[in-house]
Amino acid sequence: MRKPLHVAITGAAGNIGYSLLWRLASGSCFGPDQPIILQLLEITPAMEKVKGVVMELHDSAFPLVHGIIATDDPEVAFKDADAIFLVGSRPRSKGMLRSDLVAANGPIFVGQGTAINAVASRDVKVVVVGNPCNTNCLIASHNAPDLDSSCFSAMTRLDQNRAAGQLALKAGVPVADVENVIIWGNHSPTMYPDTSVAKVGGKAASAAFDPEWLKAEFHKTVSTRGSAIIAARGASSAASAASAAIDHMADWFGGTHGKIVSMAIPSKGWYGVPEGLIYSFPVTVADGKISVVEGLEISDYAQEKINASAAELLGEREAVADLLK
Amino acid sequence: MRKPLHVAITGAAGNIGYSLLWRLASGSCFGPDQPIILQLLEITPAMEKVKGVVMELHDSAFPLVHGIIATDDPEVAFKDADAIFLVGSRPRSKGMLRSDLVAANGPIFVGQGTAINAVASRDVKVVVVGNPCNTNCLIASHNAPDLDSSCFSAMTRLDQNRAAGQLALKAGVPVADVENVIIWGNHSPTMYPDTSVAKVGGKAASAAFDPEWLKAEFHKTVSTRGSAIIAARGASSAASAASAAIDHMADWFGGTHGKIVSMAIPSKGWYGVPEGLIYSFPVTVADGKISVVEGLEISDYAQEKINASAAELLGEREAVADLLK
Repeated sequence: MRKPLHVAITGAAGNIGYSLLWRLASGSCFGPDQPIILQLLEITPAMEKVKGVVMELHDSAFPLVHGIIATDDPEVAFKDADAIFLVGSRPRSKGMLRSDLVAANGPIFVGQGTAINAVASRDVKVVVVGNPCNTNCLIASHNAPDLDSSCFSAMTRLDQNRAAGQLALKAGVPVADVENVIIWGNHSPTMYPDTSVAKVGGKAASAAFDPEWLKAEFHKTVSTRGSAIIAARGASSAASAASAAIDHMADWFGGTHGKIVSMAIPSKGWYGVPEGLIYSFPVTVADGKISVVEGLEISDYAQEKINASAAELLGEREAVADLLK
Repeated sequence: MRKPLHVAITGAAGNIGYSLLWRLASGSCFGPDQPIILQLLEITPAMEKVKGVVMELHDSAFPLVHGIIATDDPEVAFKDADAIFLVGSRPRSKGMLRSDLVAANGPIFVGQGTAINAVASRDVKVVVVGNPCNTNCLIASHNAPDLDSSCFSAMTRLDQNRAAGQLALKAGVPVADVENVIIWGNHSPTMYPDTSVAKVGGKAASAAFDPEWLKAEFHKTVSTRGSAIIAARGASSAASAASAAIDHMADWFGGTHGKIVSMAIPSKGWYGVPEGLIYSFPVTVADGKISVVEGLEISDYAQEKINASAAELLGEREAVADLLK
């Protein structure tokens, strides 16, 4: 039996956390032979609720779960963590601008980055799910100066999965037949779902679909999907967000075997994106290392979209400049 | 690639359904190589909400999901179904007695049994999760006269998992080291969690624990766990109930490989339980066939508990006698 992985989850009593924990515990993320120790972080007022979640986890008798702790202390939750899901964040309330949201979340991610820096495994893999996830990730990463910035990522896999799902529905094929959809940029309406190298049932997406549909309806459906879910379900995306987080982390640990996926990672200037921004790129993963897929042909239209999302992220970075070390 | 299994879920927009669907879609139940078609049933007023759930399932891009339908027509939902999770039921409202609950749920399960009889696969496997699950199962089974009664079961796996979890916590071992806990009877406070053949870390539970703790605190914790979860979490067990349903169905399809589990199935008079009651017994499963573990030594104390839960189920059967064909 392998040594258990220490897996930390923030916002553990929230709706995404509730979906995520059972997927983790069942082996969906790290495989059927990998025991885990779950380390749950919540804010103090939610400790009673998280206790109930822990009770239900015990009640699920998962063979792979070798331990569960719940705490309101980040240095306890992140201790020796090999994988961290930063799910908890301050949600956007009515009338709040994106800039207010960025500012409200800053202090949370300063504290969590600092704690990760102090106690997590030196090659921890962190994915930020809580929004605004790219800039929250930037803050956490800057406040963990002893860790390589490659330990940090933010999640655009939900956008990728939504895009793949829409292409599959439109083509009338199982989603397994959709490959290499790319999400560029910020996990926000400025992100760009790019189908230029995507394949559907082995056929180039550019040949399979009307280009106008891809530019207009497809793009709009993907980038406004969160609101459509709220309208239909009466609650924001939870299980699909958790599922995307599982996919992101499973690929990071297990590799993508040549498949292109999208992850928001610290830019090294690829495709004209300013260095240091946490920006979603097409990547592959092997042996736990994320590599950006370089040398893709980028149309003028795509470059404009890529630049626009980078510009938004530059603005967010300026808004939190005093939180960055 | 295998032929997809048709998997029907009722109460698909409810909290248990929301947990169950993602576990099914990820391959937790039928394995990583078995495609599925999800067939969701909801009541008419919940059709908008279930539409949101279907959107999120598409947004999760599960390679194993080869189709999703949502309907308020049982004959559409159960069409060709190989596996059915009857999760939806009328919940107990304040001041409702168990007998009121039994009566309120009867008509739902008459209708669903009739529809299953008409359109499901002839060797469908049905697990009833919605409470009172044993008697709901009895009603559904009686209203599906063309199907063998061995197609029907009710879920006591949550009780089994809770019992195993408590023994593991008490012994301080991973729950994988707990084997052969038995749940007898009704999924109600009269059920009997029996540790007489259980092992913890390879050691007999009877030797590992204080017999008084097993009879009193352990029994009480397991049989009142539902209320304790509600008190802590502010909501009833959902993910743990879904997880138990996954375990139940996974064992039914995949076999238990000699391990004893508990399932409520139509009694053939085993251990003095009146024939025809849907009663939880210790079972093993091989090749999709459930076999009761016979010949266990039953103490007078245990037999009394077994009889008491049977008596409760006899009472429930009398209360719904007019719904049984």
